[in-house]
Amino acid sequence: MSNVISIFDTTLRDGTQGEGISLSADDKIKIARKLDAFGAHYIEGGIPGSNGKDIEFFKRVKSYAWNAKLTAFGSTRRKQSLAEHDTSLNRIIEAGVPAATLVGKSWDFHVHTALQTTLEENLAMISDSIAYLKRAQMEVMLDAEHFFDGYKHNPEYALAVLKAAQEAGADWIVMCDTNGGTLPNEIGRIIREISTQVQVKLGIHTHNDCELAAANTLVAVEAGVTQIQGTMNGYGERCGNANLCSIIPTLQLKMGYSCVKDEQLQELTTVARYVSEIANVHMPVNQPYVGNAAFAHKGGIHVSAILKDSRTYEHIQPELVGNKQRVLVSELAGQSNVLSKAQQLGYELDASKPETRSIMERIKELEHQGYQFEGADASLELLLRQATGQTEEPFAFESFKILVEKSAQRSVVSEAIVKLNIDGETIYTAAEGNGPVNALDNALRKALIRHYPYIEEMHLSDYKVRVLDENDTTAAKVRVLIESTDSQNAWSTVGVSSNVIEASWEALVDSIRYALIGREKRQLTPERKEQIGLVNH
Amino acid sequence: MSNVISIFDTTLRDGTQGEGISLSADDKIKIARKLDAFGAHYIEGGIPGSNGKDIEFFKRVKSYAWNAKLTAFGSTRRKQSLAEHDTSLNRIIEAGVPAATLVGKSWDFHVHTALQTTLEENLAMISDSIAYLKRAQMEVMLDAEHFFDGYKHNPEYALAVLKAAQEAGADWIVMCDTNGGTLPNEIGRIIREISTQVQVKLGIHTHNDCELAAANTLVAVEAGVTQIQGTMNGYGERCGNANLCSIIPTLQLKMGYSCVKDEQLQELTTVARYVSEIANVHMPVNQPYVGNAAFAHKGGIHVSAILKDSRTYEHIQPELVGNKQRVLVSELAGQSNVLSKAQQLGYELDASKPETRSIMERIKELEHQGYQFEGADASLELLLRQATGQTEEPFAFESFKILVEKSAQRSVVSEAIVKLNIDGETIYTAAEGNGPVNALDNALRKALIRHYPYIEEMHLSDYKVRVLDENDTTAAKVRVLIESTDSQNAWSTVGVSSNVIEASWEALVDSIRYALIGREKRQLTPERKEQIGLVNH
Repeated sequence: MSNVISIFDTTLRDGTQGEGISLSADDKIKIARKLDAFGAHYIEGGIPGSNGKDIEFFKRVKSYAWNAKLTAFGSTRRKQSLAEHDTSLNRIIEAGVPAATLVGKSWDFHVHTALQTTLEENLAMISDSIAYLKRAQMEVMLDAEHFFDGYKHNPEYALAVLKAAQEAGADWIVMCDTNGGTLPNEIGRIIREISTQVQVKLGIHTHNDCELAAANTLVAVEAGVTQIQGTMNGYGERCGNANLCSIIPTLQLKMGYSCVKDEQLQELTTVARYVSEIANVHMPVNQPYVGNAAFAHKGGIHVSAILKDSRTYEHIQPELVGNKQRVLVSELAGQSNVLSKAQQLGYELDASKPETRSIMERIKELEHQGYQFEGADASLELLLRQATGQTEEPFAFESFKILVEKSAQRSVVSEAIVKLNIDGETIYTAAEGNGPVNALDNALRKALIRHYPYIEEMHLSDYKVRVLDENDTTAAKVRVLIESTDSQNAWSTVGVSSNVIEASWEALVDSIRYALIGREKRQLTPERKEQIGLVNH
Repeated sequence: MSNVISIFDTTLRDGTQGEGISLSADDKIKIARKLDAFGAHYIEGGIPGSNGKDIEFFKRVKSYAWNAKLTAFGSTRRKQSLAEHDTSLNRIIEAGVPAATLVGKSWDFHVHTALQTTLEENLAMISDSIAYLKRAQMEVMLDAEHFFDGYKHNPEYALAVLKAAQEAGADWIVMCDTNGGTLPNEIGRIIREISTQVQVKLGIHTHNDCELAAANTLVAVEAGVTQIQGTMNGYGERCGNANLCSIIPTLQLKMGYSCVKDEQLQELTTVARYVSEIANVHMPVNQPYVGNAAFAHKGGIHVSAILKDSRTYEHIQPELVGNKQRVLVSELAGQSNVLSKAQQLGYELDASKPETRSIMERIKELEHQGYQFEGADASLELLLRQATGQTEEPFAFESFKILVEKSAQRSVVSEAIVKLNIDGETIYTAAEGNGPVNALDNALRKALIRHYPYIEEMHLSDYKVRVLDENDTTAAKVRVLIESTDSQNAWSTVGVSSNVIEASWEALVDSIRYALIGREKRQLTPERKEQIGLVNH
């Protein structure tokens, strides 16, 4: 048996069924290009002709060369009709891509209840549709919908569906756990039972309704399937599809299967984060393998062990999937966290020097005030820079004013006035916004854009407010965490104040300072860097 | 073999190792009370004496009656020392709770690398520590850290660790997949191998680094363990711990095991969301079983099939875990909740009347905008009052203005101007505060106090801000929840806006309106109440 597993990505089709996921044709092209470079074998682009985005996508696909096989999705022909006259099937052919996935019913209950036709007619629908696309020279996959439920209720019929597909010439039969309710031992047993009875290559398509989509996919591979269908970051209807970002590394690094090249696997984190950027969905920090916290250590015992040998608390080397180790600085940990964090960021601190002790004191004091640096690497780096004497600043703050006004007759208005100084020039500008923080953000950007056009490229991707010590109510301190991104990077900053506006201002300003200083660093020659003290070890 | 599985919740200990999770002692008590009502058998509260929060938590725990066993966590004694002299072990005993979890090394690599001691000394550390706590009459569990890695590298030593624990009198041995890197088939095989060799009750503790924590827990239960350790919503270090919110329903609804009572399971969604509220962590919409999209149907084919029979695309009835189906066309969703809530508050609504339908519409519309009445009874009651024609108001709002000002030289200043009308008199006043919301609160109180001296007696006891739809960042909507108290009562109100000031204003005003209207009610004779329509049934 070969150990090569075909990766079938359906982010662009099933993934877009997820709540809050909406991709333009342009987004879809961008993601498809990235998946192609990553090494996906099949990229399911959508349902040709079903909507404007998918029509445009399949049109634009033709102007690129692909390593992957682009795939079009559709249902089997309508009941009581001819495949040749079926608009959707004809659109699949017209899409001009090499492969097609047809979804067909394999649970008798669905044939009766949802399709409202006979079991025989459903077999004919499957068989006619596959044969028609095969005659058009396409590679054809049957997605056997609700296969496991179907097999549990009526194994003869579920098997008859697979046999009809095989006889009609299907290249792949993909067993779907459409409602995500099947357990791993059932998946394994059923696949072993049917695999002796069909000769076509098998695939698996699972959903995460029991948090078992990854396990169900792995058990199917062990039972012999050689194609796995899933989405990036597990996007998809309800609880999502099988998450390829978790399954691919497990198959390849732990189970001896081959999915993509090793150097492609090292791009996994970048690809996953890119897709989440384009889809505009916040990636949970704790996402396996690719999340920002996947290799982050907070507990003091863990951190001190990690510093001795990272294998003590890491199941793989993070670099194998393009992620990295992070040590979180928090109340749960001690000095060793701060030192190793500084080292990671490129600052060599000598624990015995007084400057180092004074940074430690400063960080502890800030944490005591409510700052939290474990979620705000960029603010921590700015502190470390300052503490090590690297003090150049892209702008100097002079003042801001915010006005929020509401009357019984008129809806609320928020305005911000910002005064800054850049290289001796005073910049004084104002903007409105949906709320006071948005107005401040808008005014700040407006003030900076002429000197720093890059500011257009970065944007805030997450904004969190947390009330500290809630017993003090409206006079309590709040902590604001902001995450920002540009096309390359993500960074987080923090602000704390009893005034939510001031806390937001701090985090906003840190975010922009970090971006502008970092950008400058990237653009400078090594000599100039050295000159202005920007050398990281 | 019994089918009863003990639920060991470590949200308050291992859960707080998750990035961005920080719980005050008060938060911990609230969550523990909720877990106790939900039916958790063990609630691990923290590490006694390790920090101020945990000290306060174990002190406050004593003032409640618990069904669950509260559990304290710690390590085995330090090397080359006596258990009796070990500060941490003594603090566990002093915590005064009935159960303890001790983490001990079972991987020889860790004994050498992290502990830096001999294999024999590690066995003695485990054995002495367990025996010491057993002499103090505690129920003792050994968390065998990295058990599966240990067993794969040196099965004899890993087993010797378990035997040492057994001989020292441990009540439970919990096998931990500490770095989350073990696969389900390995977990199953290893547990079957060791379970013939130890006689102590077994537990499982998994992490989600391969997105397999739920599957690994289930396979361990099938192999014979009867205690599962995990956290609510899967919070925990790196990629998190086993998510009890996914595992409990699968065990109970699909595998024939018994964890909690059926009516407790129906509270699962409420408990999960409550914990995420308190932890101030956004619950992913696609979280299995309890997420807002877990039973939400978007695809057209899915929706039409669901309307024919919900079993077509739902693996369980959502109500079994307290969740609900969401379909865009559904009109009945939530009506029964609102009716029964209204009845609780003393408003008899007739579901067939047009007024009732219009309240329903209004509430649905507000919930769609982001209002949440589950945590804001007082705002809901104000809505119901208005809808049932009880429209007297203690004051009429005319306008407010807020000014926040900060300059490089001076610290931030927040001022609010409020204009109200009480019985035809215009009241126009201003105040400052620590922040804009505090200034608004102060100005509002100042404006009302002459007419309503009672306002001195009430105060805000909790103020929470939550960003809805975090992708829109500073332009996103926020929800503000305020809890208020006087000497007699506590009540909660809600406000939603893309402007944090406006949302806070709404919740503030609702809080005061509710208090003043309620107070009037309490002071009036029954006759007068009847006259002004203030009779609650």
